[in-house]
Amino acid sequence: MEYFPAPLERLVEQFARLPGIGGKSAQRLAFFVLGLPEEEAQAFAGAIIDAKRGVTCCPVCQNFTAGGLCPICASPKRDGTTICVVADPRDVAAVERSREYSGHYHVLHGVISPMNHVGPDDLAIKPLLERVSKGDVEEVIMATNPDTEGEATAMYIARLLKPFDVRVTRLAYGIPVGGHLEFADDATLMRALEGRREM
Amino acid sequence: MEYFPAPLERLVEQFARLPGIGGKSAQRLAFFVLGLPEEEAQAFAGAIIDAKRGVTCCPVCQNFTAGGLCPICASPKRDGTTICVVADPRDVAAVERSREYSGHYHVLHGVISPMNHVGPDDLAIKPLLERVSKGDVEEVIMATNPDTEGEATAMYIARLLKPFDVRVTRLAYGIPVGGHLEFADDATLMRALEGRREM
Repeated sequence: MEYFPAPLERLVEQFARLPGIGGKSAQRLAFFVLGLPEEEAQAFAGAIIDAKRGVTCCPVCQNFTAGGLCPICASPKRDGTTICVVADPRDVAAVERSREYSGHYHVLHGVISPMNHVGPDDLAIKPLLERVSKGDVEEVIMATNPDTEGEATAMYIARLLKPFDVRVTRLAYGIPVGGHLEFADDATLMRALEGRREM
Repeated sequence: MEYFPAPLERLVEQFARLPGIGGKSAQRLAFFVLGLPEEEAQAFAGAIIDAKRGVTCCPVCQNFTAGGLCPICASPKRDGTTICVVADPRDVAAVERSREYSGHYHVLHGVISPMNHVGPDDLAIKPLLERVSKGDVEEVIMATNPDTEGEATAMYIARLLKPFDVRVTRLAYGIPVGGHLEFADDATLMRALEGRREM
């Protein structure tokens, strides 16, 4: 015998598909949604549809946007001679939060990962090369994550950018601000020493 | 400047309202949904609407059902002389999993909790009294959780059932099957001793 009515079971299943949501959590979320007033449940469903329909990729930088150019590419205040290459739209948000960067971005939508069957052709690398080939770009900052796949992707793209007259840089490695030396891993500490600067 | 386009921000907000989902998780879930194929995102939104519209409360036991009587109340195989009173539809599922119970249920949809402004009138207590007053019921098993609020609710309902010619019982307390004596708390161990049985 089924324990929950079919429409409720289906909602539990939908929640259980989400990353990091187990069976018990999915049940809790489905029951919560069922307990919402009709119009709030409608708003939730509407938000899914709207996001799916209303969010596109910026034709220039490939970042998510609500149609047309993204606000950063469209802004005359941003410096178009620098491109910061990131793996994910969330990384754009992270760099923006630092308030340190005023250039443009390029979102790859992933990293090269043979284990997950993601090759260079699955990423937005070609549009990046096209942007650089136009000649206005002076510097490309590789800001993929400092893990194996992020490193490999950065190296791969750096090599493709060699033929162009453009400076290719990588985010600095080192101990995180507020971190403790004793908890820093060997590789990070090594890179922090390597990258030491005059005071 | 906004970091994400508005429709995406709204979806993140919707996920962040769910219980146990923080800001970072909400972002991860929203991005996952955005990455789904159009028809799967539609299915997710549809499941919310369908659950909200298609799931009602059984007019007899108040458990969730897909319209009309619930399968348990409608089944001729179930014993209508016993009612197991639980706080939540999930508790019905838990008792059903034990395969030990073949009676009917009654779902209160909550417990009495003055801290959360839930009084007896907010629960499905009146329909329970109506069911018992019809005279077919021989036993009411109070199966609310063994915590303060569950206890108080069970005691309250037991008192209301006094005038009727019906046996009111409570789930047994004791050490959980597979548990270790050394990890059992004092109250549980005390109850386990109190409730000891002949071998």
